[in-house]
Amino acid sequence: MPQNPQIHLVSRPTGEPSADNFKLVTLDTPALQDKQVLVKHAFLSLDPYMRGRMNDTKSYTLPQPLNSVMIGGTVGEVVESRHPKFAAGDKVVGMGGWQTYSVVDADTPGMLRKVDTTHVPISHYLGAVGMPGVTAWHGLVRIIEAKAGQTLTVSAASGAVGSAFGALAKARGCRVVGIAGGQDKCAYVVKELGFDACIDYKEHKDYLSLSKALKEACPDGIDGHFENVGGMVLDAVMLRMNQFGSIAVCGMIAGYNGQPIPMANPSLILVNRMKVQGFIVSEHPDDWPLALQELGGLVGSGQFRPRETVAQGLASAPEAFFGLLKGKNFGKQVVQI
Amino acid sequence: MPQNPQIHLVSRPTGEPSADNFKLVTLDTPALQDKQVLVKHAFLSLDPYMRGRMNDTKSYTLPQPLNSVMIGGTVGEVVESRHPKFAAGDKVVGMGGWQTYSVVDADTPGMLRKVDTTHVPISHYLGAVGMPGVTAWHGLVRIIEAKAGQTLTVSAASGAVGSAFGALAKARGCRVVGIAGGQDKCAYVVKELGFDACIDYKEHKDYLSLSKALKEACPDGIDGHFENVGGMVLDAVMLRMNQFGSIAVCGMIAGYNGQPIPMANPSLILVNRMKVQGFIVSEHPDDWPLALQELGGLVGSGQFRPRETVAQGLASAPEAFFGLLKGKNFGKQVVQI
Repeated sequence: MPQNPQIHLVSRPTGEPSADNFKLVTLDTPALQDKQVLVKHAFLSLDPYMRGRMNDTKSYTLPQPLNSVMIGGTVGEVVESRHPKFAAGDKVVGMGGWQTYSVVDADTPGMLRKVDTTHVPISHYLGAVGMPGVTAWHGLVRIIEAKAGQTLTVSAASGAVGSAFGALAKARGCRVVGIAGGQDKCAYVVKELGFDACIDYKEHKDYLSLSKALKEACPDGIDGHFENVGGMVLDAVMLRMNQFGSIAVCGMIAGYNGQPIPMANPSLILVNRMKVQGFIVSEHPDDWPLALQELGGLVGSGQFRPRETVAQGLASAPEAFFGLLKGKNFGKQVVQI
Repeated sequence: MPQNPQIHLVSRPTGEPSADNFKLVTLDTPALQDKQVLVKHAFLSLDPYMRGRMNDTKSYTLPQPLNSVMIGGTVGEVVESRHPKFAAGDKVVGMGGWQTYSVVDADTPGMLRKVDTTHVPISHYLGAVGMPGVTAWHGLVRIIEAKAGQTLTVSAASGAVGSAFGALAKARGCRVVGIAGGQDKCAYVVKELGFDACIDYKEHKDYLSLSKALKEACPDGIDGHFENVGGMVLDAVMLRMNQFGSIAVCGMIAGYNGQPIPMANPSLILVNRMKVQGFIVSEHPDDWPLALQELGGLVGSGQFRPRETVAQGLASAPEAFFGLLKGKNFGKQVVQI
């Protein structure tokens, strides 16, 4: 069996994570048991939720254990199979973690899924046609319940979730305004992703200033918002929400590294009779087939062409992850193994 | 036609309202037009929402105009009628305002409703079997969607809305824990209203301390919360909410007089996949008949015996209102005209 380079979490960060929280280890790949499949990873997904897992605190899932392979979504190819439904050469998506190979108990539901790479590049099954895409779909369809003609906003608009949100919202006839960090990202969001407008939050010193820019970009107010960030962006959006507006809360990346960030004016929830609802996409398995079908169609037809930032080689994963947490990536961040 | 003493709003408060914001004026009652009804008020309702109306800022309704009768719910008796559906002697509930008589265009839907005072004292149609009761019902049934066996909490538990929430929740087999200000109120909430426990928030210097008390009173966590206050109480409750819990936001009384009060840890909305939703009861007219029927049954049968604080005479309304804003009342605050 082949050698399997892998990255372990060896200590928990206080504040920002750093390289010494991780360790590159090379182990042998164990021989396959019955119903198991050996997958060689082509790409590893890096996602903001991983920062939360590095902590040892109560959250919606268990913490990542120390001294074992970091959790993470992967796409790749079956190289050996002892399961009747998988054969060598199959392209698959799973949760293989930060390593070169994974041995998967393919009988466990949801562990491994074959994908069609005829029209959709395999790495997109980690982004637009994967977990981030379904995340955007759930927030848009189930929480915001978007309707044609509405104005919607999304933070981290150039990222994997934000860009999928924009494509899905445009397909429904909504006006979509992105919020992103930097002129380059904003230009990409408007010119390549087809958003109606994009606001660079870095140009604003506080939420009142950002809120003014939102007022110009959203002259009819905001009917629905998808929150990936929290903090100043959320405060600014709340000031512009219309009556009976909904906010889908998917991420609070700004708070992961330190103290909780307060919400400036929660009384707006009452004044505008808003709904603010948090969710995690893995708890809504029923949505996945419908969402993936729509997202696959948008990407396969070329209607939605999301960019990716590709780091080269497993060893580059920690640095690429730190960059993701600082917003250095452009679109979906993956690592080519 | 009789003389009609009435109270006008003559200036807007900055911060706490005071007596000089109001003026007692006596006018003649105009002669009735066709389809109009003259009502002599027995009781005037005082409610926290009135503080919001005194401001000239955007809220969910228009501000109370200056130099006209303060808005408010009233119960009383028809003394003269030019409408075929009303006759002298009818007991009615309406929005007569801070005055002794009102002339009502009885053809306008929702302006005037006859009530049965056989089993329910008339003043209760301003509280337990009126707008506050329906408010509690909507939050409990439509937003929290309470189920038997769940643990629910409510702030301002001894007030008109809070006490109705407790009665409705107990009728559904829930564990109900109140939060109120002072030992006397807490004793009333448990001994007379039948809550399972009540926490005196005045005994706690910050939300972390209050949250600890909530942990003891709610060993299985909190599944649903009805918020009448905001601020420290909301922050404390959020720390104890269970996964998929719901918060119905009905009041933010603590913020009316000054700056917005932030929410300490909004990321809990994500961590616990919570729903936080604001509402105002007047926008849900379909709920009223069902809610009033249930509330009338609970009060009429003696299962729910809410207390009232009764101020005597129209001129006492401003002082009684200031007391309400400071939590001096015990149960529903009304003014006997």
